[in-house]
Amino acid sequence: MVDARFYVNRGPFSAGALAELTGAELVHGAPTLALVDVAPLDEAEPAHISFFDNTRYRPQFQKSRAGACFVRRKFAAEAPPGMALLLTEDPYRAYALAAQQFYPVAQKRVATQIAPSAVIDASATLGDGVVVAPGVVIGARVTIGAGTHIGANSVIGDGVEIGEDCQIAALVGLSHCLIGHRVILHRGVQIGQDGFGFALGRGGHVKVPQLGRVRVEDDVEIGANTTIDRGTGPDTVIGTGSKIDNLVQIGHNVQVGAHAVLVALCGISGSVRIGSGAIIGGQAGVVGHITIGAGARIAAQSGVGQDIPAGTSYGGTPAVPIRNWHRQSFTLAKLAKTDRGAHDNDD
Amino acid sequence: MVDARFYVNRGPFSAGALAELTGAELVHGAPTLALVDVAPLDEAEPAHISFFDNTRYRPQFQKSRAGACFVRRKFAAEAPPGMALLLTEDPYRAYALAAQQFYPVAQKRVATQIAPSAVIDASATLGDGVVVAPGVVIGARVTIGAGTHIGANSVIGDGVEIGEDCQIAALVGLSHCLIGHRVILHRGVQIGQDGFGFALGRGGHVKVPQLGRVRVEDDVEIGANTTIDRGTGPDTVIGTGSKIDNLVQIGHNVQVGAHAVLVALCGISGSVRIGSGAIIGGQAGVVGHITIGAGARIAAQSGVGQDIPAGTSYGGTPAVPIRNWHRQSFTLAKLAKTDRGAHDNDD
Amino acid sequence: MVDARFYVNRGPFSAGALAELTGAELVHGAPTLALVDVAPLDEAEPAHISFFDNTRYRPQFQKSRAGACFVRRKFAAEAPPGMALLLTEDPYRAYALAAQQFYPVAQKRVATQIAPSAVIDASATLGDGVVVAPGVVIGARVTIGAGTHIGANSVIGDGVEIGEDCQIAALVGLSHCLIGHRVILHRGVQIGQDGFGFALGRGGHVKVPQLGRVRVEDDVEIGANTTIDRGTGPDTVIGTGSKIDNLVQIGHNVQVGAHAVLVALCGISGSVRIGSGAIIGGQAGVVGHITIGAGARIAAQSGVGQDIPAGTSYGGTPAVPIRNWHRQSFTLAKLAKTDRGAHDNDD
Repeated sequence: MVDARFYVNRGPFSAGALAELTGAELVHGAPTLALVDVAPLDEAEPAHISFFDNTRYRPQFQKSRAGACFVRRKFAAEAPPGMALLLTEDPYRAYALAAQQFYPVAQKRVATQIAPSAVIDASATLGDGVVVAPGVVIGARVTIGAGTHIGANSVIGDGVEIGEDCQIAALVGLSHCLIGHRVILHRGVQIGQDGFGFALGRGGHVKVPQLGRVRVEDDVEIGANTTIDRGTGPDTVIGTGSKIDNLVQIGHNVQVGAHAVLVALCGISGSVRIGSGAIIGGQAGVVGHITIGAGARIAAQSGVGQDIPAGTSYGGTPAVPIRNWHRQSFTLAKLAKTDRGAHDNDD
Repeated sequence: MVDARFYVNRGPFSAGALAELTGAELVHGAPTLALVDVAPLDEAEPAHISFFDNTRYRPQFQKSRAGACFVRRKFAAEAPPGMALLLTEDPYRAYALAAQQFYPVAQKRVATQIAPSAVIDASATLGDGVVVAPGVVIGARVTIGAGTHIGANSVIGDGVEIGEDCQIAALVGLSHCLIGHRVILHRGVQIGQDGFGFALGRGGHVKVPQLGRVRVEDDVEIGANTTIDRGTGPDTVIGTGSKIDNLVQIGHNVQVGAHAVLVALCGISGSVRIGSGAIIGGQAGVVGHITIGAGARIAAQSGVGQDIPAGTSYGGTPAVPIRNWHRQSFTLAKLAKTDRGAHDNDD
Repeated sequence: MVDARFYVNRGPFSAGALAELTGAELVHGAPTLALVDVAPLDEAEPAHISFFDNTRYRPQFQKSRAGACFVRRKFAAEAPPGMALLLTEDPYRAYALAAQQFYPVAQKRVATQIAPSAVIDASATLGDGVVVAPGVVIGARVTIGAGTHIGANSVIGDGVEIGEDCQIAALVGLSHCLIGHRVILHRGVQIGQDGFGFALGRGGHVKVPQLGRVRVEDDVEIGANTTIDRGTGPDTVIGTGSKIDNLVQIGHNVQVGAHAVLVALCGISGSVRIGSGAIIGGQAGVVGHITIGAGARIAAQSGVGQDIPAGTSYGGTPAVPIRNWHRQSFTLAKLAKTDRGAHDNDD
């Protein structure tokens, strides 16, 4: 199904192997059933494995031709006849793990390759199996861990440390930073430049030297053209396993905990602390020096101006508890007598 | 008027030729009138051609020294004496076409030029008249159509297909994508990277392999540092003739119809469908899996959370029909007794 | 304190020298006191100099071990015994100047260095002490002033002029622009590409040639991945000493006055005028053709749709005087009976 110009399928895998890998219980099917690819419910064929998670797709599940499917136990009875079922309480996660078997996302270790056009300072240290693409520029005293790949025309500044098995895409710029293991940086990411620090004044703004670093911990993924400024003295920190989308701005001294999620175009001002597992919606903004508690959820486009307690959901500008925000929108629509939501055609 | 370091004027052109090119009716002027440049109404001289479209500029029209002017028939009587008039119902469009004669925006075919420092995989196929600037890196099995130019230090990943007469600027990164003909990609555009797909979980987020592509159809233009993620299995599609501004984020599986307009810093979440001719304002956000109808207009900074009918205008967060949004703003100002809009000086 | 891989300390400096440099009055301390580094109040040791500006940090000031401290006269009596005091009415600015002595932000003139892999057109003119990093591409007739550094893989288009002592980081793209002296452009900045100019039409949008330039005046600093479009005929102008953060979009013909501040992810539409000293908050948006007066302040995420008088503060979408905006938020919360700000835990 996939375009062979871009993807290589590592299958087939047996239903039994995929069940074992994902901790699912295989029912209605032979462990030896050979599965050659992954596919969505409505496109899957008998040699494909699919998943059913969102109940919106119930009709597609009931009619699917997939040979095997990850599904919750409570929906097993609705499966079409002949479908092997892999029972699990988290079908999407199980599907993700299975799909990674067919199409690995972790990088395989290969022999070291250094493109002749790369310019690497003599004092840099590269581990085994490092791949450096054409046009890459690597500064003095840089260290790059085993198995890490650096994409074409990326620029790594003096003193930067990168861990093992990282995927640094093309056109990435790094300086004043320490990058962990298995970190994925997409194209155009810029990490470690000066934070926006000025002593403002009518006669001109005085630049405040930015003397910290950015520390990106293990298993972080950062989206295309996102920018992360280095700290003023303390470091800017992105915690283990956090996922940052495209075009996000992270200011100096920000500390993001483990496994947080920051969606595209959100902006995090200086010295904000974001707790582990928090989710910041797209285009949301957070003012400086506040704390977003662990596991908090901030709705898209919210403007957060005060500390947010752990485990809560907030929305709106200024952000309030999400139910209050919905109530405010409802109240305003009612007062303005616009609550019928009638559609105007004024084009 | 223009800076000769940056622009070459291909004129002069005769009033008759420009009338014919644009379908305008030439009155009050000789077809042989030589016009040497374009200029705005208030700067134009007798050998220049201008246009009058926005009635805000009526005084400038009435006093303009322009030798010729595109204008609607109903304003012809207000023209200053001696001005050649090119009557048309769309003066701005006619002006745009005329200005393109003086300063072509389409690329002229030239002889093939491949910079010595470009690194091009032996399996790539380049058409006639392809121009590859210094530092470009082109991967395996890439195909580039005749007349396409690739700007300095851009990186084209394995298997990418680019059509004819495209203008790929410097520092662009492409992977997992198929680009049509006459496409313009400005500097820093990133197309085809992984979408933001994770099976979220408290113990860590599992990456979902992204197995689709991005298809950019003919005559699309995409602004600087904009990012477009590839599909998860289906493709992300940008329809014919659509125009996307700078710093826009487009998520996986988004389908943009023909001739849509997306203004700077807007964010389109995964699996959104945008109908043909729709206009998405600057910094607007659209949540995943919804449909914006053909010809719909979304005001700047709106937050769209539900399907938008074709041909309608919406604004606000959450977005409502634009008149309702205005009424809500008015109502709130009135209730807060702030409707006089008095200016506070608190600096 | 700082990471020696990234920063070189130029100290020590004497308390007397730092007082003289900053115009502060030295009391309770010997002019010969040697200070070896800068540090925040709570981390400073006896050989360090710190500052006390924000009264939130009063307890840290009263207990600090710093050997010297910039402080306002009125807080001098609260200093711990033995601390040398440098009295000034702007402690943060004085600190910034002192920190620049230890860690210079201006570039030192060095001997010319041109990396062998840079591709420089024979018609380009480079001043004394220009440093061109690997992979840089410089077009025809470019001029670069003395002491300017160009970072790796940056691309400078034909005819561009850059002044003296500029810091152009890696991966920057410039065309159709004139850059002043001592300008700092961070990585991924794109300046001078076509503005978003189209004559819109149902059958297709016609591109309007963009015939102006971008002029960036002296002492401007522009953040990572920010984009500035060139003018349509007039120029886009960024005034002397203005500071622009990361991921900002500035449209064609925008004129920014001197010493303005534009925070991350804000978007300025075409032909806007921003007065000197104005501050535009993060993620704020400004519609086209309006004027923001000198010294005006626009709150983060505001949507500005009309002229803003000089010296005022505005907020909200649509933006109103900041007190009115606060009153509207308060009124709405009250009407919706959500004003207690109770926290919902719904996770």
